[in-house]
Formats: sequence, C-alpha cells, structure tokens
Amino acid sequence: MERTESVLVPEFEDIRKAHKRINGLIHRTPVLSSESINIITDCSIYFKCENLQKVGAFKFRGASNAIACLTDEEAAGGVATHSSGNHAQALALAAKMRGIKAFIVMPSNSPQVKKDAVAGYGAEILYCEPTLEARESTLNKVVENTGAVFIHPYNNFNVICGQGTAAVELLEETEQLDIVMAPVGGGGLLSGTSIAVKGLSPETIVIAGEPEGADDAFRSLRDGFIHPSVNPKTIADGLLTSLSELTFAVISQKVDDIVTVSDEYTIKAMKLVWERMKIVIEPSAAVCLGAIMQHGERFRSNRIGIILSGGNVDLGKLPWQK
Amino acid sequence: MERTESVLVPEFEDIRKAHKRINGLIHRTPVLSSESINIITDCSIYFKCENLQKVGAFKFRGASNAIACLTDEEAAGGVATHSSGNHAQALALAAKMRGIKAFIVMPSNSPQVKKDAVAGYGAEILYCEPTLEARESTLNKVVENTGAVFIHPYNNFNVICGQGTAAVELLEETEQLDIVMAPVGGGGLLSGTSIAVKGLSPETIVIAGEPEGADDAFRSLRDGFIHPSVNPKTIADGLLTSLSELTFAVISQKVDDIVTVSDEYTIKAMKLVWERMKIVIEPSAAVCLGAIMQHGERFRSNRIGIILSGGNVDLGKLPWQK
Repeated sequence: MERTESVLVPEFEDIRKAHKRINGLIHRTPVLSSESINIITDCSIYFKCENLQKVGAFKFRGASNAIACLTDEEAAGGVATHSSGNHAQALALAAKMRGIKAFIVMPSNSPQVKKDAVAGYGAEILYCEPTLEARESTLNKVVENTGAVFIHPYNNFNVICGQGTAAVELLEETEQLDIVMAPVGGGGLLSGTSIAVKGLSPETIVIAGEPEGADDAFRSLRDGFIHPSVNPKTIADGLLTSLSELTFAVISQKVDDIVTVSDEYTIKAMKLVWERMKIVIEPSAAVCLGAIMQHGERFRSNRIGIILSGGNVDLGKLPWQK
Repeated sequence: MERTESVLVPEFEDIRKAHKRINGLIHRTPVLSSESINIITDCSIYFKCENLQKVGAFKFRGASNAIACLTDEEAAGGVATHSSGNHAQALALAAKMRGIKAFIVMPSNSPQVKKDAVAGYGAEILYCEPTLEARESTLNKVVENTGAVFIHPYNNFNVICGQGTAAVELLEETEQLDIVMAPVGGGGLLSGTSIAVKGLSPETIVIAGEPEGADDAFRSLRDGFIHPSVNPKTIADGLLTSLSELTFAVISQKVDDIVTVSDEYTIKAMKLVWERMKIVIEPSAAVCLGAIMQHGERFRSNRIGIILSGGNVDLGKLPWQK
C-alpha cells in the first residue's frame, strides 16, 4: 500500500471530464422536491434521484467512467470486480454497453435476485465462499487468467470521478445550496460529491449521513485514521464497507461533517419518500433525510441537496412490514 | 340534462390556454423510460409521471385549472365536490393555493388515510352515508348553504382541459409517438389526453386501458351510448366510475380504441414499474402497461406514450403480498 500522502486524488477538473465522457451513457436523473417533506423538516430539500439512474443506482456513473477510460487494449480483456450489490450490476451493464466482458465474483450465498440481476446484464458470475479472503483470491485468479482489469467499487480514481457527476448535475439545476448531503459506506459517492461541490460552490457545506450501527467513517474522520468497519449492524445494506485509502484522503480534505442516524429514522425517512414523493428508494438512500429528521435543529431553514443513492429493494420484504 | 349534441366540448386551443394558466402551479413531471421494460414489451415506452405530480396524481391539473378559471366573486364562496379519492385531495390543495375554501363530501366509511390526506390540505370534510343519493343531497346542501361552486371530478369543461396538459408536455418531450395511452374511469384524463394528442399529432393513435372488471367505457364506445358502471370489480380503484355526458362526447370523437386488461396483468405491470423504474404507481396507473403486456402482438415495435395517472397507494398493503 502507498502512503496516504502519495495517493493521487481527483480534482474538480477530472469530474468535469468524466461528465463529458459519460454524458451519452447515463440518464440525466431528475431533481425532485416535495412540499410536504419541506414542511415536515422545515427545510428546502432538493433530491437528486439516482434511484432513477440505470441499474437503479449512482454506481452506474462510476462504472461507466472507469470503463470509458480503458484503452482498447485494456478493454479487450474485460473488467472484473467482487461485489454482490449495485456496483456489480453497474459494471455488468457498463461493460455490456462497451461490448466487453465483465467477471463478477460473488459469494455463493448471495440472494438469487442479485445473481439474476447481474446475470441479466450478461456478466459472467464466479461464485466463492462468503469470506473476504475467498473473494480476493477468486478475483485475483480471474484477473490472472483473463487479463481483465479490476475495477474496485470505490478505491478507484475514475470511479470516484464518475460518482461526482451526480452532484455536478444537482448544482447545475438548483440555486445556491447551503448543504449537500450524501450517504457514506466505502466513500466513493461521498468523495466524488465533495470534490464536485467544493469545486463548483466552495461555500456549500458537505455533510454525510451514516448509520449509527456502521459509523466507521464518522470515527475515521474524527480520529484522523481509517477505522475498519467491523460487524456493522444496519438496515442500510449498501453502507457496510470501510473507507479506502483513496476515499479517506478525499473525505478528510473535503467533507465538513458526518452525521450518524438510527435505523428507526432511516426507515421513517424511507417511508416518507415513498409516500410523499412516489419514488422507490433503498434504505441506504434514506439515511441523509433520516439525519435531517433525527437532528432537526441543526438543519432547520437550510437549502439542502441530497443525493438519493439508489432504489434496489426487495418489494416483497419492506422494513415497515411485520 | 342537455342532449349530447349540445354539449360544449373543449378544443385543443382550450388546453393550450389551460396550460398557460396552470404552468406556475403544477409540477412539470418527468417523462421516464426503462430499457428493461422496453426489452420485455418490445416497444419504446415513454412514461409521463403524473404520480410525481402534486398530491400524487394528474387530478391536480384539472382541479387547478377549474379553480383558476373562477372569477373572484365565484371563488369567494369556495369550491365543493364529492369524492374520496385523488380529486378530493387535488381540489383541496388547489383551493388552498388560491386561498379559498374547499368543501369535500366523503362517505363516512372512507379509509382514515384518505380523510387525513384531505384534511391535511385544509379542506372542510362533510361526511355522508355511503350511497350516491346521500352524497348528492349532502353536496347540494353544501352548495346551497355556502355558495361554493361544485367542481365535478370529470364532467367539467375546465377540469378536462387541465387533465389534457399532461399529454401536451409528453408530446413536447418525445419524438413522434405511434400511440398515446391513458387509463379510463370517468374519462376526464382520457378526454383531455385525446384532445391534446389529436390537436398536436393527428396521426397518433389514442388508446385507453380499462380493467376487464369495470369495462363500461369499452362497452359504451362500442355501442354508442353510455353504459353505467354497475358493480365494478377491479383492483384499480380509481377507475370504478361511469363516463359522463361530456367525457362520452369527447371519447366518441377522439379515442381510437379501448383495450381491457385483467387485474392479473395490471398487478404484474404495477410491480414491474416499481421494480425497474423505481417509482410508486397505483393500480389504476398500471392498466395501460398491463394492456401492452396482455395484448403484446398488437403493440409490438411501437413508440408509445403512457400517462401514469397516480401513485397513491397504501404502502402497508401491496397487491403482490399475501
């Protein structure tokens, strides 16, 4: 591992370039707001709807940019990653759109619906035991055997640049925001968002929402070193991972604060968005609104942009149902 | 009742004027599409998302236009209607926005969530027995006592003009559509939609979707006179009512066909939209996609616009759950 000081960190100009690169590939998702949610929170909130992005998550932006940045020679061997979540689907679709192969390493006990989704985008799935070790060794083997390029879900310069393009569009469509919020798991979205916001509107504050039961990023920012995510417990299943060297470097520089949220408030916020805005968001996408609802005083009367990160949920098993 | 021949029917120019009138009041809702739904149906479908409209339904357009058309003198007495559904909420909010009173006659056995929604917009609710007779006599009393103007949910010139503005926006944002579809209950949305489509793009075919268990509009169009809706049975609870004199007159002239759909396909379509498009739609909004899925051959390879009429559902009770 390189030392943090020597990590090459994206700058705003890199996000601009990424945006031009992927503009024709991604959906320009709408920015929506809800009068009733504004009344309930006493804020003006602008939701950037990445749940309406291709594959139902912002992850498609990063995956598209990473794949678009490959030379033809690199692309010839395809791409590979280990993930059972939105990054796997995003990489699979982005690879399909470029006409190259995607190899996805997934734990054999992944839910069938996730396996189907990735297979549906034409990726080749390689199953492994559900341990970090098995995942990494399987991935290494794939890369060796096929020459595929490993695209990490967030510890990747071009992935971060892609994720930052959502905030660029959000700021293009809203007048002066006091705060921009994004959820934090591995930190890819938060890194890209914070670079974009500080590049376009330096006085806007960047705050992350993080589940109380997976508050490793909160502790990392506070203590100045990466706390690994150990036994995280939260309904926000997209936010279980640890920060990486690259995302920690960015977040330390650019993010003003991380606010933790109980699952109770995350579920309340999720249901409120479904009910009032008529859009499907996953629990991970609800933590920022949950933070506003839980820590009302702190956010009151502000103009706030929130990146709604994704909408991939099991419709047969909703958190407000017994 | 006037004879059908003498009914004053809106023309396209009336919808244009309505659009200018309500432009600052309504949301300009997005037009979304889904690659996977296009693949499944072998069509190119453009969904006009009126589920994302204020109060979660297209009804806000018609109510806003009807209220905007009132003189100050008329408006002084407020507005009144009988409805327990989306029109009640729409009228309540539109009245609140103009600063006038709304009187809503509702059956006493209406679900609490609907009572709360209407009351939440500041309307005065008057309860009656759950019969058509009680509803009408209660409404008549309100109108007599208060001087409020009765705004019928669909047998109203200005309401129909407002509903037609959704199709105007849809056509503004999409290239040449082969077909435009809307669901039909009382026919207000379908009337406005068909006038708008034939005005802007005469060669585009207008087709309605209607539940098999509430196919009175289908039979009315076929037979040339209004069949009342008797004991309708469908999950699409926004489509239970009969056509009116005014909507029948428009639909007879402007609508090319009405296609009936089983509830099974409506539920399939509804779930597909939630899953793939990450938006919440109500069963009534799903009948058009259901029609395409049930009668695939007929729609294949077409470019189709669909008005997604609304998104007001009980999230605790979804039709695909036991």
